[in-house]
Amino acid sequence: MKTQLTGIVPPLVTPLSDRDTLDVPGLERLIEHLIAGGVAGLFILGTTGEGPSLSYRLRRELIERACKLAAGRVPVLAGITDTSFTESINLAVHASKHGCHSVVLAAPYYFPAGQPELIEYLNDLVNELPLPMFLYNMPGLTKVNFEQDVIRAAMQWEKVIGLKDSSCDMIYFHKLLRLTKQRPDWSLLVGPEELTAEAVLLGAHGGVNGGANLHPRLYVDLYEAAVAQDLAKVRLLHSQVIELASRIYAVGKHKSAIIKGIKCSLSLLGICDDVMAEPFHRFNEPEREMIRTHLAELGLL
Amino acid sequence: MKTQLTGIVPPLVTPLSDRDTLDVPGLERLIEHLIAGGVAGLFILGTTGEGPSLSYRLRRELIERACKLAAGRVPVLAGITDTSFTESINLAVHASKHGCHSVVLAAPYYFPAGQPELIEYLNDLVNELPLPMFLYNMPGLTKVNFEQDVIRAAMQWEKVIGLKDSSCDMIYFHKLLRLTKQRPDWSLLVGPEELTAEAVLLGAHGGVNGGANLHPRLYVDLYEAAVAQDLAKVRLLHSQVIELASRIYAVGKHKSAIIKGIKCSLSLLGICDDVMAEPFHRFNEPEREMIRTHLAELGLL
Amino acid sequence: MKTQLTGIVPPLVTPLSDRDTLDVPGLERLIEHLIAGGVAGLFILGTTGEGPSLSYRLRRELIERACKLAAGRVPVLAGITDTSFTESINLAVHASKHGCHSVVLAAPYYFPAGQPELIEYLNDLVNELPLPMFLYNMPGLTKVNFEQDVIRAAMQWEKVIGLKDSSCDMIYFHKLLRLTKQRPDWSLLVGPEELTAEAVLLGAHGGVNGGANLHPRLYVDLYEAAVAQDLAKVRLLHSQVIELASRIYAVGKHKSAIIKGIKCSLSLLGICDDVMAEPFHRFNEPEREMIRTHLAELGLL
Amino acid sequence: MKTQLTGIVPPLVTPLSDRDTLDVPGLERLIEHLIAGGVAGLFILGTTGEGPSLSYRLRRELIERACKLAAGRVPVLAGITDTSFTESINLAVHASKHGCHSVVLAAPYYFPAGQPELIEYLNDLVNELPLPMFLYNMPGLTKVNFEQDVIRAAMQWEKVIGLKDSSCDMIYFHKLLRLTKQRPDWSLLVGPEELTAEAVLLGAHGGVNGGANLHPRLYVDLYEAAVAQDLAKVRLLHSQVIELASRIYAVGKHKSAIIKGIKCSLSLLGICDDVMAEPFHRFNEPEREMIRTHLAELGLL
Repeated sequence: MKTQLTGIVPPLVTPLSDRDTLDVPGLERLIEHLIAGGVAGLFILGTTGEGPSLSYRLRRELIERACKLAAGRVPVLAGITDTSFTESINLAVHASKHGCHSVVLAAPYYFPAGQPELIEYLNDLVNELPLPMFLYNMPGLTKVNFEQDVIRAAMQWEKVIGLKDSSCDMIYFHKLLRLTKQRPDWSLLVGPEELTAEAVLLGAHGGVNGGANLHPRLYVDLYEAAVAQDLAKVRLLHSQVIELASRIYAVGKHKSAIIKGIKCSLSLLGICDDVMAEPFHRFNEPEREMIRTHLAELGLL
Repeated sequence: MKTQLTGIVPPLVTPLSDRDTLDVPGLERLIEHLIAGGVAGLFILGTTGEGPSLSYRLRRELIERACKLAAGRVPVLAGITDTSFTESINLAVHASKHGCHSVVLAAPYYFPAGQPELIEYLNDLVNELPLPMFLYNMPGLTKVNFEQDVIRAAMQWEKVIGLKDSSCDMIYFHKLLRLTKQRPDWSLLVGPEELTAEAVLLGAHGGVNGGANLHPRLYVDLYEAAVAQDLAKVRLLHSQVIELASRIYAVGKHKSAIIKGIKCSLSLLGICDDVMAEPFHRFNEPEREMIRTHLAELGLL
Repeated sequence: MKTQLTGIVPPLVTPLSDRDTLDVPGLERLIEHLIAGGVAGLFILGTTGEGPSLSYRLRRELIERACKLAAGRVPVLAGITDTSFTESINLAVHASKHGCHSVVLAAPYYFPAGQPELIEYLNDLVNELPLPMFLYNMPGLTKVNFEQDVIRAAMQWEKVIGLKDSSCDMIYFHKLLRLTKQRPDWSLLVGPEELTAEAVLLGAHGGVNGGANLHPRLYVDLYEAAVAQDLAKVRLLHSQVIELASRIYAVGKHKSAIIKGIKCSLSLLGICDDVMAEPFHRFNEPEREMIRTHLAELGLL
Repeated sequence: MKTQLTGIVPPLVTPLSDRDTLDVPGLERLIEHLIAGGVAGLFILGTTGEGPSLSYRLRRELIERACKLAAGRVPVLAGITDTSFTESINLAVHASKHGCHSVVLAAPYYFPAGQPELIEYLNDLVNELPLPMFLYNMPGLTKVNFEQDVIRAAMQWEKVIGLKDSSCDMIYFHKLLRLTKQRPDWSLLVGPEELTAEAVLLGAHGGVNGGANLHPRLYVDLYEAAVAQDLAKVRLLHSQVIELASRIYAVGKHKSAIIKGIKCSLSLLGICDDVMAEPFHRFNEPEREMIRTHLAELGLL
């Protein structure tokens, strides 16, 4: 499992049956659904997984169960992003003990560190990590961008094996691709599914796309068409991705609309419950009905 | 201790001797320094206290030790802000068990909740809280402002007893004062020390000022002069506060400059160590030397 | 008229009878209303005056008419903020020719200049200006803040005689007051009326308050009470200002709500028309009705 | 010339020999350089052209001269973006009189209009326009994004014939492409050159790329390779574009770095002077030397 990660690595939603209770059968169905869809790995405890909203007890339980359920068929990546250095390390140790492939880390998200502070922080963290690590650029939520100097520093550390970019900034992404040519073992993965087509066409290694929870095959096919340089197929599948996103993620009014849309859809598909972690709450019936209509019209129900 | 909180309630820095080790003698000296300076309470685990950067183990230890050291002389307020609802409740229960007066909560700071989501979140939280609570408005770090609808909702809950505003937005603050007239038991406290003079002159109940760690008497005197409507004295002390802030907080280059400046000063005064929690690090020697010069010129060394 | 400007200098709305036609009788009534209210000057072509939305022809006409109508009773200040250096100078020359006291300049607002670029720009401009100039800090609309280095540079130029700050950032304002002590001839004026009380209590020279269009006496009284250090009176008048602002400026939904609220009120008071310059349009009947109710309840109708 | 615009339409820098003087021979050389490079049109008075920084007299002169110099070989598009409705119309009338193909309009950039206000503004403007119009989405400088409702409204107006998007937000761009399928006569053009490859691969009609001032053939070849679906060639040329941008636009420190880099390069190539309009100034010698080195290493000198 030490080889480079390529393909679609969905950021799993966290199936919950209550505020602090994992929906274990839902998790199992979700993982089977994703592996059947051809995904290249499972990323738990990310943004789509509402990682920062979960208790540490639940995060540890999720790591254990996901690794057991995946059973080595695909690598499991665990989010360890935290405002506390010590808690990030604690989670990484737990992930290592239970068989995760690697960990994923965004910048600490309460205090926005300056870029030199960020380099020092990452250096200290990498020194104590028991697993390889992906950086996760998510400035919209962390308030901090991994600028080029940070990337240059990170390229010196063997333990850092790639980056997931959710900045939605393709100019930044292309500069990353240019910058990281000296680390051919790195995986550059793009977060937002609307950008997977172009990212892969122009050199990225895959996508960490929330919509793949719902319809993994679509994203895997899109990725493969892009790798095969089948532009006609890419255009077709890309337009389906845009259609899905334009409908399912536009039902809610707040920033939570994407995660709520995915969880509500999964619940309608019978895969898992749509309980959300605070500060969010599941859609009410009128919004649920709109999601149902969209899923039907998209041929997913 | 059920009466309204008024006066200066410093947000304590967290004395550390190592990344995850409390500097216990430093904490004791700090608390004695503050109580001797006339403060009205001790607020631990806030922004100045680097609360979100500390491990949960250390947060619990700090709650226990601060309550024991304060020994009932002044109320202790504990920050329970977290991205996880469950961890906030866990901390509040711990705070209650060890004798805290109340808890302090800013908005969850990874996912920015919409205002209706925020009301639902706060309502759920208040229902489970074992202690009275202050809201803490800190949009610069949480990305979320407590708008008027949230305040209106919070005024219905007896358990919420006030608000600390660190928005730096005095127009907002004046509207809060207008809005909360129906809750005469509420304490409206202002965060940034540069705004304490005007806030108290125009109706606020006190300040939660970081600089009070360093020189509690200055802030207490300013508060008392404002309550006494001694405008000449207010102007003089206010200009001293501005002078201190313009020097001590301007040595560092990043957002961490304020906390680093305070901790470095406290270390030079022999009160506690200046170890910072990641992602921050203490000042290097040249910056430390500048702080030393400023302290000397301000007559504090 | 070379002496320092102190007191309330309202930023006049621009009475229009059509998109590109000045409402001349409205302008006359407005100016008489303001002078009768005790204002210390008239600031035309500012933000409240929708200056950047007006054609140059109309801007020139307004300068001419305002100077003629003021007839030397109070100084007239003309906004010359522009994205084009040449057009700013053209307007300043026109203002000088027709008797304006001084000009007012915010940063160019299309391209956000870096601070060193801003200093060079201001230096070039000051060299060609035929009149004294106030800086106008308005980062919310210009995207550029006048940082301390810019202020330090501007203090070297005799032609710059003060600053109006509409940043809404009182921490910044207090630092300005500290910084400009070496220029005792400068006027530091505060923009938002909600901040006039505290600004003047702590050292500012006056307010450039939009609400003074509507009710000049209230703001003049507030200013005078603050200068007289009559804190009880300041609190009372300040709360009336907050009440007015919380009602009149909260009827509209967009950023234009303040100017629309003022113009609609002036129209209901029979002072001038409420035609707005594009991209804005006057309130519709339901909103107009709300303004009417607020004015009645505030005792202004 | 009524047919749809496709291909590379460079946003011309404005050659100046002094603050308010056009460098006419430079303009002629620039236009010849661009037409020889295969561009599909000339867009004057845009952001790269420092349009808002120029006097109206100079803007009118530039319209006249550019149309005369282009002499019908390629269409000329004139930017009429302004904070004043009347001045936008004045410029459009001038552009029509002198033979421009169409006009280009970003949102008014002092007051940020709400979306319904924006629709009303555009509707009023379109009614008075003598020429077809492209919308120009430039939220980074105008503070206003053309949201989907605005686009839906604009699709109803025959006079609006396309949109240039400089939001740098490809998710938005893909949604635009989806939305505007009902207007097959529209041209969707992308602003930033780093995004031209993917935009055209996935359905856009061309690019309005600043770097094409410098090296038009590179961008034209990239566009043509993308239309031809020659992915290998697209990747090669795209990486050259990223290389050029990563070097030439990274010499300056402020937001002006792109325009300064282009103008300095054109001056080194002997095409036109590098005088900038205020608030900007040309590079000093050390930065000029860095540009020279980059151009040499890129094989452009």
